[in-house]
Amino acid sequence: MQESIENKKLSHLNAAGEAQMVDVSGKTPTLREAIASGQVRMKVATFEAIVGGNAPKGDVLGTAKIAGIMAAKQTAQLIPLCHPLPLHKIEVQITPDAELPGYQIQATVTTKAETGVEMEALTAVSVAALTLYDMAKALDKSIQIEAIRLLSKTGGKSGNYRAD
Amino acid sequence: MQESIENKKLSHLNAAGEAQMVDVSGKTPTLREAIASGQVRMKVATFEAIVGGNAPKGDVLGTAKIAGIMAAKQTAQLIPLCHPLPLHKIEVQITPDAELPGYQIQATVTTKAETGVEMEALTAVSVAALTLYDMAKALDKSIQIEAIRLLSKTGGKSGNYRAD
Amino acid sequence: MQESIENKKLSHLNAAGEAQMVDVSGKTPTLREAIASGQVRMKVATFEAIVGGNAPKGDVLGTAKIAGIMAAKQTAQLIPLCHPLPLHKIEVQITPDAELPGYQIQATVTTKAETGVEMEALTAVSVAALTLYDMAKALDKSIQIEAIRLLSKTGGKSGNYRAD
Amino acid sequence: MQESIENKKLSHLNAAGEAQMVDVSGKTPTLREAIASGQVRMKVATFEAIVGGNAPKGDVLGTAKIAGIMAAKQTAQLIPLCHPLPLHKIEVQITPDAELPGYQIQATVTTKAETGVEMEALTAVSVAALTLYDMAKALDKSIQIEAIRLLSKTGGKSGNYRAD
Amino acid sequence: MQESIENKKLSHLNAAGEAQMVDVSGKTPTLREAIASGQVRMKVATFEAIVGGNAPKGDVLGTAKIAGIMAAKQTAQLIPLCHPLPLHKIEVQITPDAELPGYQIQATVTTKAETGVEMEALTAVSVAALTLYDMAKALDKSIQIEAIRLLSKTGGKSGNYRAD
Amino acid sequence: MQESIENKKLSHLNAAGEAQMVDVSGKTPTLREAIASGQVRMKVATFEAIVGGNAPKGDVLGTAKIAGIMAAKQTAQLIPLCHPLPLHKIEVQITPDAELPGYQIQATVTTKAETGVEMEALTAVSVAALTLYDMAKALDKSIQIEAIRLLSKTGGKSGNYRAD
Repeated sequence: MQESIENKKLSHLNAAGEAQMVDVSGKTPTLREAIASGQVRMKVATFEAIVGGNAPKGDVLGTAKIAGIMAAKQTAQLIPLCHPLPLHKIEVQITPDAELPGYQIQATVTTKAETGVEMEALTAVSVAALTLYDMAKALDKSIQIEAIRLLSKTGGKSGNYRAD
Repeated sequence: MQESIENKKLSHLNAAGEAQMVDVSGKTPTLREAIASGQVRMKVATFEAIVGGNAPKGDVLGTAKIAGIMAAKQTAQLIPLCHPLPLHKIEVQITPDAELPGYQIQATVTTKAETGVEMEALTAVSVAALTLYDMAKALDKSIQIEAIRLLSKTGGKSGNYRAD
Repeated sequence: MQESIENKKLSHLNAAGEAQMVDVSGKTPTLREAIASGQVRMKVATFEAIVGGNAPKGDVLGTAKIAGIMAAKQTAQLIPLCHPLPLHKIEVQITPDAELPGYQIQATVTTKAETGVEMEALTAVSVAALTLYDMAKALDKSIQIEAIRLLSKTGGKSGNYRAD
Repeated sequence: MQESIENKKLSHLNAAGEAQMVDVSGKTPTLREAIASGQVRMKVATFEAIVGGNAPKGDVLGTAKIAGIMAAKQTAQLIPLCHPLPLHKIEVQITPDAELPGYQIQATVTTKAETGVEMEALTAVSVAALTLYDMAKALDKSIQIEAIRLLSKTGGKSGNYRAD
Repeated sequence: MQESIENKKLSHLNAAGEAQMVDVSGKTPTLREAIASGQVRMKVATFEAIVGGNAPKGDVLGTAKIAGIMAAKQTAQLIPLCHPLPLHKIEVQITPDAELPGYQIQATVTTKAETGVEMEALTAVSVAALTLYDMAKALDKSIQIEAIRLLSKTGGKSGNYRAD
Repeated sequence: MQESIENKKLSHLNAAGEAQMVDVSGKTPTLREAIASGQVRMKVATFEAIVGGNAPKGDVLGTAKIAGIMAAKQTAQLIPLCHPLPLHKIEVQITPDAELPGYQIQATVTTKAETGVEMEALTAVSVAALTLYDMAKALDKSIQIEAIRLLSKTGGKSGNYRAD
């Protein structure tokens, strides 16, 4: 299995090992979806303060969701070798997790394009998580952003992917 | 200890629980530094492919560092309630970690301003990590971004902070 | 008539009442046009100063038009739940109105896409108006931006619209 | 009074009538505040749908506020001759007005800088209003943005201003 | 030959001589490529310092390439009347030229769109050149950016172009 | 003289030869000005078409000036290792040059900051030149951007600079 990985090429590096954008002009636009997730772990007291303070207006989570959605639209400006793409849907969900304690974040992005939207989904999760940190950092500087990863990907020639 | 946290207010929420930007106009500009870190975990084969392919030109790590530096300058555009600040230094270091296996990322940001640069350092780490993911995702979609947190913070009225 | 409105759903809110981007991935790209308008009202003396000072070079109106065109291209970065779209034409017209006194602004935007460009046209008008304000505010701080609205919309499944 | 206006110069036009940015390098930074307002008028049924649909989560108004705050930070990128400034506070308030019917929007921006923040406050109001339009346009395309103006301005050499 | 040029219209100016964006909504998307080039001339000692200092890590050239690629994606935000387009490939090459002495820069951009990508390629070259200047300006303020031009263009109704 | 250059270090490269942002936090803000220039060379017929078509409204040159001013404000987003700075004045002048034939562009930027504004002035010239190219490219694809360089720099510890 490692052999097959070694035989693949790092698609962003050309023959000379230099960074390059992958040429997608030979590809056909297809419907594509990517789902990414991550979590924000905090002290119990911080979690309870957010849950409590957040109840009447929902603004902490609402702000983080909006930040995630807007960041997904900035992905190609943030990640040097990403292609600028039209996006058809961006959804960010943030769920309290008393066990963690903290919040679970999941982002779904869809498009019809020549390349996938994994980076858009991962960027949405990352910036939603950073916004949660920002809004709670006066309470707790030890908040940690964890486990940002791709959950699934559909569409495109390379086939579907689903995390274990 | 929890009590003291509960007594603090979520500074981004006003009396009505609505999101707001903290007013820093009464504060004096002071020298401030924040250091954040995170890590990117991948399969052994992916790590070895990057280390190998990267050797001659350093472009994977170089590209991720540049992306992190540029993202730090976009922090106030990404995080809704962050203040736009002049920045005096942004440094991003990416170190291979064969044990992980993967890469350790650390960002240091300094400014002389009325408020701190924690979010700038955390944003630099996050976008550098996303860029690493982007450049290796053709090899390994299970790459995971982990442990993004504030290592230390100096300057400002609220005092210094150092993670355990 | 009110009943039919109540039966429609606020398309940006999901079942739980949370903000979301509308999923347009099932829609077919069609040619779409939106025309929006607005006006900037000012004191007679301010209007005369702009008309007079503007005559030789046209820079006040020219600058406002360019600002409106460029802002239309930023719409998806400004309006959280707007889709990023390719745009095929953006035109901004600014006409003096001695009766007002002030300026009438009209913007036309066209695309071939899965969703419409009303927000792009309204954003172009708004930022052109703000630029007029900015360039004349040294003369008159009481300038008022008024009557920003959609004049017409063609293309797309929801049918054409024309303001009364 | 008109005479005094005519004697002032359009500060954004140089001797040749060309657009230019005002040179503020000779000015001393002072604390400055600007407050701007505007309103969004809609059909009764639209207003009631937003009030009703909005109750549980507050996301329509919350999203518009965040959009206004983030847009204020983009002012110098939108308005060609605005100076890029650090901003110390941005607050956007949106209040239902059953008489209108619709919403009253007010934005307050403060800084310590060589020039004022009127445009930042006006931009925050404009983009919050556009976001309200965007989130309700599926219900009502006749929504109108009205009466965007400067309410007050303090700080700076040109003195304070308060609208009648 | 001048006559034929005079008979063409400046496509960005409408009948009234005002700036406008060309309407491309009647055009069919086709594969398009543009290649642009430019050069950065510097003192011999500066060139040698970059070549020497650059050898182990390649960061000066790597940083300039990344800056050029990212700038190409910002073209429609920088050039007022450019259309926002999806881009399929952006490649920037920087080659040392001991004769100059300095660096030759070449950028290739491809898309499938209604209009061409000449401006994207020229913008990539310009910003890569500016980045080289920035990274060497501590050594040599007399560095000069030269000969930025379109090398070739294929695709689109107006036919192919190749510089002499 | 070469020796002294060789002894200076490439300030953007750290000891390991990696790209980094220069730390300016130990520097005192001082008034700084930078002036940069460049030129756009075109066919005689193109020059005459612009001069003629431009006469009534001045929009080609006006648009290019505005683009240059707005680009200067984006410098830190375009050039990876530039510091984000407040800017106090940006002026772009474009002068017809029948001898060239074409246009001479000059940009002046001032600030009070810890570091200089050479890159802002050079970026303003570059983007104004690209905009001229864009607006005339339907007439003449052989237009060339030339001789972009720093004319002078004042303020800051490294002393003043004036091109020969």
